[in-house]
Amino acid sequence: MALKEETREKLRRVSTPTLATALYKRGLRQQFIQEVGPLGPLTQSMVGEAYTLRYMPAREDLNPITVFRDRGHMQRRAIEECPPGAVLMIDSRKNARAASAGGILVTRLMMRGAAGIVTDGGFRDSAEIAAMDFPAFHVRPSAPTNLTLHQAVELNGPIGCGDAPVFPGDVIVGDADGVIVLPAELADELADEATEMTAYEDFVTETVRGGRSILGLYPATDPQSLEDFSAWRRAKGR
Amino acid sequence: MALKEETREKLRRVSTPTLATALYKRGLRQQFIQEVGPLGPLTQSMVGEAYTLRYMPAREDLNPITVFRDRGHMQRRAIEECPPGAVLMIDSRKNARAASAGGILVTRLMMRGAAGIVTDGGFRDSAEIAAMDFPAFHVRPSAPTNLTLHQAVELNGPIGCGDAPVFPGDVIVGDADGVIVLPAELADELADEATEMTAYEDFVTETVRGGRSILGLYPATDPQSLEDFSAWRRAKGR
Amino acid sequence: MALKEETREKLRRVSTPTLATALYKRGLRQQFIQEVGPLGPLTQSMVGEAYTLRYMPAREDLNPITVFRDRGHMQRRAIEECPPGAVLMIDSRKNARAASAGGILVTRLMMRGAAGIVTDGGFRDSAEIAAMDFPAFHVRPSAPTNLTLHQAVELNGPIGCGDAPVFPGDVIVGDADGVIVLPAELADELADEATEMTAYEDFVTETVRGGRSILGLYPATDPQSLEDFSAWRRAKGR
Amino acid sequence: MALKEETREKLRRVSTPTLATALYKRGLRQQFIQEVGPLGPLTQSMVGEAYTLRYMPAREDLNPITVFRDRGHMQRRAIEECPPGAVLMIDSRKNARAASAGGILVTRLMMRGAAGIVTDGGFRDSAEIAAMDFPAFHVRPSAPTNLTLHQAVELNGPIGCGDAPVFPGDVIVGDADGVIVLPAELADELADEATEMTAYEDFVTETVRGGRSILGLYPATDPQSLEDFSAWRRAKGR
Amino acid sequence: MALKEETREKLRRVSTPTLATALYKRGLRQQFIQEVGPLGPLTQSMVGEAYTLRYMPAREDLNPITVFRDRGHMQRRAIEECPPGAVLMIDSRKNARAASAGGILVTRLMMRGAAGIVTDGGFRDSAEIAAMDFPAFHVRPSAPTNLTLHQAVELNGPIGCGDAPVFPGDVIVGDADGVIVLPAELADELADEATEMTAYEDFVTETVRGGRSILGLYPATDPQSLEDFSAWRRAKGR
Amino acid sequence: MALKEETREKLRRVSTPTLATALYKRGLRQQFIQEVGPLGPLTQSMVGEAYTLRYMPAREDLNPITVFRDRGHMQRRAIEECPPGAVLMIDSRKNARAASAGGILVTRLMMRGAAGIVTDGGFRDSAEIAAMDFPAFHVRPSAPTNLTLHQAVELNGPIGCGDAPVFPGDVIVGDADGVIVLPAELADELADEATEMTAYEDFVTETVRGGRSILGLYPATDPQSLEDFSAWRRAKGR
Repeated sequence: MALKEETREKLRRVSTPTLATALYKRGLRQQFIQEVGPLGPLTQSMVGEAYTLRYMPAREDLNPITVFRDRGHMQRRAIEECPPGAVLMIDSRKNARAASAGGILVTRLMMRGAAGIVTDGGFRDSAEIAAMDFPAFHVRPSAPTNLTLHQAVELNGPIGCGDAPVFPGDVIVGDADGVIVLPAELADELADEATEMTAYEDFVTETVRGGRSILGLYPATDPQSLEDFSAWRRAKGR
Repeated sequence: MALKEETREKLRRVSTPTLATALYKRGLRQQFIQEVGPLGPLTQSMVGEAYTLRYMPAREDLNPITVFRDRGHMQRRAIEECPPGAVLMIDSRKNARAASAGGILVTRLMMRGAAGIVTDGGFRDSAEIAAMDFPAFHVRPSAPTNLTLHQAVELNGPIGCGDAPVFPGDVIVGDADGVIVLPAELADELADEATEMTAYEDFVTETVRGGRSILGLYPATDPQSLEDFSAWRRAKGR
Repeated sequence: MALKEETREKLRRVSTPTLATALYKRGLRQQFIQEVGPLGPLTQSMVGEAYTLRYMPAREDLNPITVFRDRGHMQRRAIEECPPGAVLMIDSRKNARAASAGGILVTRLMMRGAAGIVTDGGFRDSAEIAAMDFPAFHVRPSAPTNLTLHQAVELNGPIGCGDAPVFPGDVIVGDADGVIVLPAELADELADEATEMTAYEDFVTETVRGGRSILGLYPATDPQSLEDFSAWRRAKGR
Repeated sequence: MALKEETREKLRRVSTPTLATALYKRGLRQQFIQEVGPLGPLTQSMVGEAYTLRYMPAREDLNPITVFRDRGHMQRRAIEECPPGAVLMIDSRKNARAASAGGILVTRLMMRGAAGIVTDGGFRDSAEIAAMDFPAFHVRPSAPTNLTLHQAVELNGPIGCGDAPVFPGDVIVGDADGVIVLPAELADELADEATEMTAYEDFVTETVRGGRSILGLYPATDPQSLEDFSAWRRAKGR
Repeated sequence: MALKEETREKLRRVSTPTLATALYKRGLRQQFIQEVGPLGPLTQSMVGEAYTLRYMPAREDLNPITVFRDRGHMQRRAIEECPPGAVLMIDSRKNARAASAGGILVTRLMMRGAAGIVTDGGFRDSAEIAAMDFPAFHVRPSAPTNLTLHQAVELNGPIGCGDAPVFPGDVIVGDADGVIVLPAELADELADEATEMTAYEDFVTETVRGGRSILGLYPATDPQSLEDFSAWRRAKGR
Repeated sequence: MALKEETREKLRRVSTPTLATALYKRGLRQQFIQEVGPLGPLTQSMVGEAYTLRYMPAREDLNPITVFRDRGHMQRRAIEECPPGAVLMIDSRKNARAASAGGILVTRLMMRGAAGIVTDGGFRDSAEIAAMDFPAFHVRPSAPTNLTLHQAVELNGPIGCGDAPVFPGDVIVGDADGVIVLPAELADELADEATEMTAYEDFVTETVRGGRSILGLYPATDPQSLEDFSAWRRAKGR
């Protein structure tokens, strides 16, 4: 189930909190990736299908520095095989004591057209990554090579990331608040619903900035609120 | 016991570390709110009386999204009833896995003239809040709606916030280091004492920048230090 | 074993991740200080020999505010005795609930020519310290005076800092990713090796930005990669 | 809504895991008190309505040892006012660094006929309490007086305990696995449903001990399982 | 590579600390499963090959209670397919807030001849499991059904358990100290080496109980120690 | 300042909670060692002067297994030099991921007449140690050799243990609730005061078991309580 370009565009214009509320209405409360934030300021939201990489704890004898000479090393394959437009989601078992990846790999991922990268661990070369025009989210910087604690073990299987479930193909959205995971089959309807919610929230924000109380307005229990909103939409062309 | 305008002004010009030391001299060691920082750069320190909101863990059947249609919902009342000049202090049980509040509510609070907002959890719409000229402090951004984990249960009672005790009317001061809680009855004398301490600290900083050792100067065990300070005060008009 | 000026210069031009990998090759996996970052943007990397200060938990009766009147107070001595060019490394037992030091002491340390300061706790006056042109690393800001929880107890002995072992004279390097500890006797060879690694990494980054895959390039399992690198070095004069 | 004696008896014969599953079927996933266990072996399950005590962080000047001379001190009132048959539930903010209560108070509570005591902190005099024939649950032993970190602040209001929501009158059940909170209005139907589930689980356990696979049996997707269960019930008189 | 019966027998007679030291000598420092202990007293050590089950975070819509009606549900398959003599190792992402399994499943596993069960989460029905003559290790009891937070997602792949790497077929040893993971290919030699080490340790313990210093004895830097040991072995027939 | 035998005897008959309260009255709130408990049931309280051992994080190249061949190794010296009657207090930086010591060393310490051993980490051979008639306190069992994470670095200096300050010679008392640290110079008066408090607490417990309320009794705000206590003391000869 490919992510429609139209859905991707809609999702770029809504926030992770709005999506979290839409998920909440459907009984989904665990989709926000905990403790993860962007490395640098984002020029736009990150949106893309999940392509996953899973780390297990590293056993020392299996992880000499020479393992990277193997072209089939899972971490390197993840970088070279993550599809354009997808987000590379790394399950680092919430362990940022060693890096999940570094500047060179993230650069390559960007060059290959990926939509972003997320780990529930940490990146090394964090200043370099923060300076790229490429969305990257982690817990905190971490200099030690991933081999220190992480052994790449699976590509594109179901994983956990920051306590959220991530299935390959789920739609990932990231902004300043963090990263949220949309079940693939719900992405279109969530994009639509969140777009509508965002219109109302923008109207409310503007109205509140004008001095109005939130009571009756947010949510719109006062019928006047919906009328005002209709007028606002017409005026704004939204 | 209302916060005097004069005290408010003094407190704006002293730092939370200076106040922490003044509290320490009185045997009060638990007044700093742990793990909380400002969302954006502050244009000035936050000062105001505490108005509190307490969350308990949310029970799912009591927290459908429709509860916000109730005009008496405690979270919404907190926003509409927090007095101008006060700081809304939220006890989120140090849990940032769901939001304590979001952009619209914080905007409304700002419009109503509150002095700031503090949670020992997290805010959603964090970029939007960070961009406001309104002091807001939290642990980290958090997209999920507060209903996911928090149920608003009490207005303006005594609470804990980041391991600090907060009583309604306590005087809250926040700066880049975080937030500190001044017992209401001590606010005036702490403001005075901290103002004097700040003058000396400013003198010390300037003197140290000029190359002098801290020994004998900080604290002023060398009588010359106090003489120099007197001269400095006269010169500076402080 | 004094840090050679040449080694210091080399270390300024390599990153903590590169050094971490060079240490990893030698079986040293615990040298990165966990959870610590710079207070402000760094104008250059921090490099210097470790001069250490150890805190133990503070006993209330031994830590009235008046202890600072003692010129022999260990914290104050640390500031006045840390050699120019050295980094003051503070073992705060990973406890940031009270400050490890504040603006005045850090200013004095800077004036005395130290290379930087690191704590696995927190600094107070964090905005002031962040604004100095002086490298300082901590976990998070913390307003309470160090006496609240920390009692300075030893100068320049072996310590732990953020789970890393630090011996006096070890060479400390800090950048945006954090701080790493180089055993004194390895500093020269690590500087050399990391310099070579950095040249190759810079070549790889440039090549990857040009569109090439990392396979065969990073690491250089394709002989062509090494030939291209030689040409690049000649062209760049590195 | 008083707890019926019949319901109390039923709840004594079902386990917290069975109740947790019955709650799960109703969408209630947060009712288990996390990280809490019994101090000693239990002679029977604890069952009773919740009577609550809330602690906030202690401010030093408000908590000299002399506060206990006040007969209205909330902690002491909680002990003297908790109704017979009820469970005293203490919100200690998951902080076991100081005691929630000690042997004398727990003894008094037992003598007054309470059904048990639970804290998400720790008890002092833990060996003495463990030796009583009185159900008590905590996180770990803790010798310091509660005044060190806890100030009793409210009786019988809604609280959090170990991340679970607790309302006065909720029905509390505790066994070797820990403590679970049943919403008052669901207690009767949960007791009935859990009683039925327990009968089936006992049948399954016996059958599995006899060598049968769980497939088709647990849950009973094989119709034969239900037939065998009917026969078993008849034979057992359950 | 099947576990030889002879190796299994040897491993039953050595302790996890002795094995940890033998692994340490080989540079393997991450093989001990952190924070896990036995539910009840063990009648003998647990030894068996690892058969693994991996949980990911549960998505609510995929985990109604009815999923257990599916005979192919991974958790149930794990119980029915774990080979006799093997240890079922569960990766619960170190999350004990919901159960990894309960009494009925553990009973079935025991009946099927498994050697034991380990989770880095918690078991429900913990008193019942503790009373079985079957080794089970976890972090703490946990009543909520696994569906609350865990979704079974893979059988017998490589996993992490309590920060240790576990590959299918690795040899698992558990005693009162906890659980350790022996790489399959090292099991025989570790069993031999640990058997020798154990003989010496038993000799040392006896000798120390007789009043001798550990210096020169442990390790045997005094040649007399080895001579005494030889005599002891002859006397003991070991 | 040697611990008087009379004081030692008194301290054996009072509890850590009673001592904690006596310390609290003196403004000492940090003397309880957090998260530490006895390995096995205690036949009597542990009392002795502190003799300390400090661990720092282990650097791999300095900690091959062969370091124990050095008779001067600090850990081994601690065992051989801890005075009879003293408690060996180990600062393991609250890290139980590797052992602080094991059965052989604890046996030797017991044979040498020490009063007990405490670590804020974990012991290996925990079942063996638990079975000795020797007080030992830790956080949890831990099989890996101390060299994995701990390097012994100092004997009998001031340390932290479980967040409490410990100075050599401080008087250590341990019971089922855990371990508390008495400043050496206060030991005598604390023993006296706690003995008096214990008499009253025993009277209160007996009285409460007889059915009396704690109000007016605990503390003794009702004059009758003190009269009854006097009578009780005479009757009991205390």
